Amino acid sequence: MQACGLIVEYNPFHNGHVFHIEGSRKATGADCLIAVMSGSFLQRGEPAIIDKFHRTKAALSRGVDIVLELPYLYAVQSSDLFAKGSVQTLHEIGASSICFGSESGDISRFTRAYDVFQQKNSAYQTTLQEKMDLGISFPEASRLAYQEIGLAASGMDLTKPNNILGFSYVKAILDNGLSIDPLTITRTKSDYHDQTITGSIASATSIRRELLKQQNISEAVAVSLPEETTHQLWAYKQEAGVWHSWEDYFHLVHYRVMTMTEQELAAIHGVVEGLENRIKQTARDATSFHEWINKIKTKRYTWTRLQRIFVHILTNTTKTDAAHVQKAATVPYVRLLGMTNTGQTYLNARKKEMNVPLISTLAGGKDSLLTIEERASRAYYSIIPGEKKKFFHQELEPPIMM
Amino acid sequence: MQACGLIVEYNPFHNGHVFHIEGSRKATGADCLIAVMSGSFLQRGEPAIIDKFHRTKAALSRGVDIVLELPYLYAVQSSDLFAKGSVQTLHEIGASSICFGSESGDISRFTRAYDVFQQKNSAYQTTLQEKMDLGISFPEASRLAYQEIGLAASGMDLTKPNNILGFSYVKAILDNGLSIDPLTITRTKSDYHDQTITGSIASATSIRRELLKQQNISEAVAVSLPEETTHQLWAYKQEAGVWHSWEDYFHLVHYRVMTMTEQELAAIHGVVEGLENRIKQTARDATSFHEWINKIKTKRYTWTRLQRIFVHILTNTTKTDAAHVQKAATVPYVRLLGMTNTGQTYLNARKKEMNVPLISTLAGGKDSLLTIEERASRAYYSIIPGEKKKFFHQELEPPIMM
Repeated sequence: MQACGLIVEYNPFHNGHVFHIEGSRKATGADCLIAVMSGSFLQRGEPAIIDKFHRTKAALSRGVDIVLELPYLYAVQSSDLFAKGSVQTLHEIGASSICFGSESGDISRFTRAYDVFQQKNSAYQTTLQEKMDLGISFPEASRLAYQEIGLAASGMDLTKPNNILGFSYVKAILDNGLSIDPLTITRTKSDYHDQTITGSIASATSIRRELLKQQNISEAVAVSLPEETTHQLWAYKQEAGVWHSWEDYFHLVHYRVMTMTEQELAAIHGVVEGLENRIKQTARDATSFHEWINKIKTKRYTWTRLQRIFVHILTNTTKTDAAHVQKAATVPYVRLLGMTNTGQTYLNARKKEMNVPLISTLAGGKDSLLTIEERASRAYYSIIPGEKKKFFHQELEPPIMM
Repeated sequence: MQACGLIVEYNPFHNGHVFHIEGSRKATGADCLIAVMSGSFLQRGEPAIIDKFHRTKAALSRGVDIVLELPYLYAVQSSDLFAKGSVQTLHEIGASSICFGSESGDISRFTRAYDVFQQKNSAYQTTLQEKMDLGISFPEASRLAYQEIGLAASGMDLTKPNNILGFSYVKAILDNGLSIDPLTITRTKSDYHDQTITGSIASATSIRRELLKQQNISEAVAVSLPEETTHQLWAYKQEAGVWHSWEDYFHLVHYRVMTMTEQELAAIHGVVEGLENRIKQTARDATSFHEWINKIKTKRYTWTRLQRIFVHILTNTTKTDAAHVQKAATVPYVRLLGMTNTGQTYLNARKKEMNVPLISTLAGGKDSLLTIEERASRAYYSIIPGEKKKFFHQELEPPIMM
């Protein structure tokens, strides 16, 4: 059986994702589609609007055969580590290709761009460092350095968000010499950052914005979602009483910062260059998460980077924890969240050839990444009013079958 | 000027306290009454129902001339350290006597009991250890050991809660050789642990219970409180939106335990003998603070002891922090919360003779106890909905004058 990997967040799972799934199956002819998905917290440093289990169900209903969870320490990271953890997970599970959506839609441009990048690597590094020394954020400095080394000449427009993401996947595959074929299909219509919904394909950002604002699934949102997502969104809201957003966590992370010592804050992953003082100083006056981040934000510390840092504060993830993945040769395990019958057939055949453990629950895990996973999950569910037991318990149950 | 010291919590300040103040003035003829008061959290491991500033105002309105704050690391401790910090604070501020309410009302019985205790100290220690080895809590083991060495023969009934407290004050004074005269007056009517209110003198426990249950000041409660307390209770509720009780903190301390590593939990002051595992294991199912403590409680770990431990978790107070006071020769500073004109006259004369700093705000404090004080205050106010700034800011303002 041939498997194709997808790198996803499904926050929430929408029609654009269905389009991506169907396009990927067509482009690769794969028998099995494997999605590696961020869990409780996402790459941009935000809590997922509904939990990973409910998102898994939506994905399995519309063409994904296997959903794997990207470990927290890869999921809530800059795009390089995010990409590395994702492609390594797909490699360990035996995917022979990955297929991602991009503005470009032409994989040869990505590989050409990689060649240019390789040849001019030292120029890239120098420019990157120069820009960062000026106080420019990493993503922006990297974009400028790409420009400087003439990556555009490869036909690659690295100002487009999905091209950037795709390039990081290609780079992760080629840097690590993985036997995975990268493929890309053109994303239709909606931009990643689109804020408004028009038509049946809308960006996840615009969908979340509407959902959180209305606390309801409006007509406009409903047409952009598969039926199963609508169902899972309602089911989650009924069970948990909430769709998660950062403001729900403000009181917890604020309490936490208020009672941490400066040394403890400085030990958190991502807190560097005296940022602990800035976070502490701004805490006293903060009355909302939005206001707080706005006060800390600089050219160098972008909103996204700060959000990731605040997720690490919330989940108590330290530099020592993060060191586990920074030098790891590959992911420590592959965690199965859910599968279809096709997915199960694939895994039965694949299991014995795997080089890392395939796990389906957090129970009894002694790997330190699993302890971090558990903390992240606990922190995620902490805002649910009343009894949280059944939510924690999902982490101990067998994978979802659909 | 002669000053008499009172050791208090005023949670809240009630008619029994007024009786104690007037009795103390009569018994000592002191020109100035100085109360050393627990701040945000109390000796039994509970948050104060309203903050220390509002309690200070109530006390100053009815005969106390100076209110000092007992540092957190003495306030939220077993009675021995609580008593030691209190009498040392009063000694540093120059009180020549202390006056406490007791069931006994006869100071000679306390000093006789201390003599017996001194003579039979090794027998006391042996019995104490034996009882504790059987899994009996410290307070109960100590009571049994007092019985065994025949302390009752001194005429002292150490089954009565206020006699026990008073004995710990007398012991702290005599153990440390302080030049303070201990005096006692008989407590009228209500027992410390009384749960119901009858008449104008009611226990603080029964008053709090009623206040928290009704979320209102009932007629029965009102008659047990000085007018200024009623006023301060309402003012606080208007400003902060809450009268504090443990359940308000459940979501914070639960989140905290859920995201702490076992090592971090084991580093908290009071967490010994593998208690971290028990706290972690019971956390998953806990749906309220009351239920949680009930699940952890054993003969050895009494409710009060566990509550103190949970305050230390909430305020992030570690064994390293606690070590600051365990071997300290005296208190590191004296903190002034408020005073009357008489109090100010007394302090002006006294100030230059003091051996430790007299401070009135937490601003710029570099003493590590002040950092802990700040954390305790931040944790205390964390449950206030919305803007907390003005509450934190009280810690930086000049002392209350009344």
